[in-house]
Amino acid sequence: MNRHQLIHQIIQKQNYLCVGLDTDIDKIPQHLLSADDPVFEFNKAIINATKDFCVSYKINTAFYEAMGLKGWDALQKTIEYTPETHFTIADAKRGDIGNTSAQYAKAFFETYGFDAITVAPYMGEDSIRPFLNYKDKWTIVLGLTSNKGSEDFEQQLLQIGLPLFMEVMSKTASWGTIENLMFVVGATKAEQLATIRKQFPQHFFLVPGVGTQGGSLREVSKAALTIDGGLLVNVSRAIIYASSGEDYALAAGVVAKKYADEMRKLCEKINR
Amino acid sequence: MNRHQLIHQIIQKQNYLCVGLDTDIDKIPQHLLSADDPVFEFNKAIINATKDFCVSYKINTAFYEAMGLKGWDALQKTIEYTPETHFTIADAKRGDIGNTSAQYAKAFFETYGFDAITVAPYMGEDSIRPFLNYKDKWTIVLGLTSNKGSEDFEQQLLQIGLPLFMEVMSKTASWGTIENLMFVVGATKAEQLATIRKQFPQHFFLVPGVGTQGGSLREVSKAALTIDGGLLVNVSRAIIYASSGEDYALAAGVVAKKYADEMRKLCEKINR
Repeated sequence: MNRHQLIHQIIQKQNYLCVGLDTDIDKIPQHLLSADDPVFEFNKAIINATKDFCVSYKINTAFYEAMGLKGWDALQKTIEYTPETHFTIADAKRGDIGNTSAQYAKAFFETYGFDAITVAPYMGEDSIRPFLNYKDKWTIVLGLTSNKGSEDFEQQLLQIGLPLFMEVMSKTASWGTIENLMFVVGATKAEQLATIRKQFPQHFFLVPGVGTQGGSLREVSKAALTIDGGLLVNVSRAIIYASSGEDYALAAGVVAKKYADEMRKLCEKINR
Repeated sequence: MNRHQLIHQIIQKQNYLCVGLDTDIDKIPQHLLSADDPVFEFNKAIINATKDFCVSYKINTAFYEAMGLKGWDALQKTIEYTPETHFTIADAKRGDIGNTSAQYAKAFFETYGFDAITVAPYMGEDSIRPFLNYKDKWTIVLGLTSNKGSEDFEQQLLQIGLPLFMEVMSKTASWGTIENLMFVVGATKAEQLATIRKQFPQHFFLVPGVGTQGGSLREVSKAALTIDGGLLVNVSRAIIYASSGEDYALAAGVVAKKYADEMRKLCEKINR
């Protein structure tokens, strides 16, 4: 999905919600465990219940990898089940030397057909370039993440006067374009989000941290929503685990709709 | 495998070679492609031919992921086939917020049973801790990598006066111990390796970059070999693709033996 198509989805729906499928076999409702593929059954019902209230799905690969072959099978079925109208993100945080990153790009863009993958920047340009080489695919580089550990390295000041995450975003921006590069910027840092938006007025930001991690949708949107949308706000646990009973999908839909309703109001800023 | 057992293997064999199974379906000998599982057939033959000349195998997950389910199946069969005497590394470069890193740790330590996994440090302490929580398992954190891109961020000077990679290694060393934490330090930076060894006299270093990437085994060993060994020097392509013909396993064994012979001489420094 290219930038034009993504913006079209966002403006048409007045919505920039990404539902995170961090599906943990230990947390899904008990009654699903007798199904052939409980994780896929769960995801299918979550997708059916939320697709009208979001524009994107993010699959957190760790939860699938932890299950071995069955997990990858569930991941593949899930990505195939996702509607074509929805922007799909492999939240995989990959990155390695060039020939290895090229294999990761192949895995997520070709083998599984995701629109985007999250990438860790530590190893620099040649670890990121292979992802950027794909047309109409997106590389989502970690900028400032939503966790406490972001203080350890990401926020450290470099001798050149910038915090590391700013240097990461600036350099990476020079390798890609607003058509193939996004950044992860955590919602738990709303004041910093506004500063970052000033530096990067046109890039899309994938914003985790709303919901269970405590970030505020209103503050995030005030800080960084643009006339193109410019945001994909991810909510995982607060939606998919809204209920642990047989009504889990219904409950997920209700929470997703709540976010969608709030987004619709916040979207007055968006160009229509 | 714990530190004592690893050191025992190294001293007994006078060897610290890690063979990197970066097995690329597009690069293995043509005649294998008709096999049920060409990648596993290839790995099995490589392991048989090299196991007497190395102490460790490193599986680069990207090459397996790129093949989808078949790749993960080949990975699982390969790790099961690896002799118990050999230290096994998932070169996966994972790392995410705590609850997600816990899933990656589960995947590689429990589901697949590796001894060690490589981890990217960008997201800080809570992204690394879940890996360190496993007894007799190892977290191998990226310090200074062997690629050109290491100049982009890893080698940047922080305001506190250290390059980023040194700060990463220092902080991480305070979270783990020499019993559960190693570092990736690239072989293409031998002079820096000596400086790093002075700072971290007891930690094991996983050293990629010897072979195709141009690093010298002699220089690396001179810079960083300790009385415990303290090194796992990885060679991937120069061994596994030593021949593209039907003699590929034999050729791999010959190259691995060449490294092993050189290591035996360099091992005079090791406590026997």
